[in-house]
Amino acid sequence: MYSQAVQTLIDELGRLPGIGPKSAQRIAFYVLKAPPENVVNLAHALQDVKDKIRFCDTCGNFAEGEQCLVCANSRRGNELICVVEEAKDVEAIERTGEYHGRYHVLGGAIDPINNIGPDELNIVSLMRRLASGDTVEVILATNPNVAGEATAAYLARLIAPLGVTVSRLASGLPVGGDLEYADEITLGRAFSGRRVVA
Amino acid sequence: MYSQAVQTLIDELGRLPGIGPKSAQRIAFYVLKAPPENVVNLAHALQDVKDKIRFCDTCGNFAEGEQCLVCANSRRGNELICVVEEAKDVEAIERTGEYHGRYHVLGGAIDPINNIGPDELNIVSLMRRLASGDTVEVILATNPNVAGEATAAYLARLIAPLGVTVSRLASGLPVGGDLEYADEITLGRAFSGRRVVA
Repeated sequence: MYSQAVQTLIDELGRLPGIGPKSAQRIAFYVLKAPPENVVNLAHALQDVKDKIRFCDTCGNFAEGEQCLVCANSRRGNELICVVEEAKDVEAIERTGEYHGRYHVLGGAIDPINNIGPDELNIVSLMRRLASGDTVEVILATNPNVAGEATAAYLARLIAPLGVTVSRLASGLPVGGDLEYADEITLGRAFSGRRVVA
Repeated sequence: MYSQAVQTLIDELGRLPGIGPKSAQRIAFYVLKAPPENVVNLAHALQDVKDKIRFCDTCGNFAEGEQCLVCANSRRGNELICVVEEAKDVEAIERTGEYHGRYHVLGGAIDPINNIGPDELNIVSLMRRLASGDTVEVILATNPNVAGEATAAYLARLIAPLGVTVSRLASGLPVGGDLEYADEITLGRAFSGRRVVA
């Protein structure tokens, strides 16, 4: 029923994450009615990102040149390396303002069900960075789920012989959360990780 | 924190309807990791739609040429004209498979709060089509809300002197719905519009 151009747009929009057929249709109708310059800007922004953005040679984060903004920042040292699964995790950690070291992006987590083993992750490049000897602590900030915990355990065993401190982000109650609604594993972690305050 | 190209893409995606900052970020990260051809296809589809799609000279529906697919279809006559608010309503009605006449797209509904009066809608072109004399019935399929009802009442008064039958879509319980959960106005309409079945 739709003319071909509209149907193609709906199909292409439907490939995006979180966009179902109804949302794709809604966006397509918005595009049809929107000022042409808005649509041209969006199309350019899409192509621009694909043309300009690559992966940082050092840490695997997104970068416009050979190095990402973090690795290119000479005020950040190699003493601390925070290992994350995805480049978007770098952004989440940067927003906290609590961390001023460097990152290493694995590109995923060990997940045998989906055929992702250690060889599919950027682990060789991490070990090469650690071998240079500047690093005193590696913070394993993979997700607190099965795949992330497995990856952290694997990396901890791999890094321990280098004499580098290996740490893992704390698990516990989310700030602003409600004890009553915490799941039992999280609450258990909050107990085992309790801090002495007085 | 993001490089400029990524931030621009997130901003542009955030303008789309139903896409908040979190979804925009999620889609941007998908775009960064997606195969380049997928992204190029999406960018082309966006520009294609803006380049190719215009409004039908006759009915105001979306069209690739001068006339939309419905108006260009010679097997559909002018006996029935279904008046809708937006072009997407045409699609919704076409999907029912119940209607085989033509359409007229108003481009909105009378809405004094947002400064939309009869002059902002495609009403002159509708009256011109009716003046040609082929049409025996106009079905007012504007939305069953305040603006849509006001528009339908206005059009009914305008069209009545031409001797054309004017009808309005039935209001009542949605099929598969539950009487208990129907709002009182809908249930009231279902009563006043009840059909004799035996």
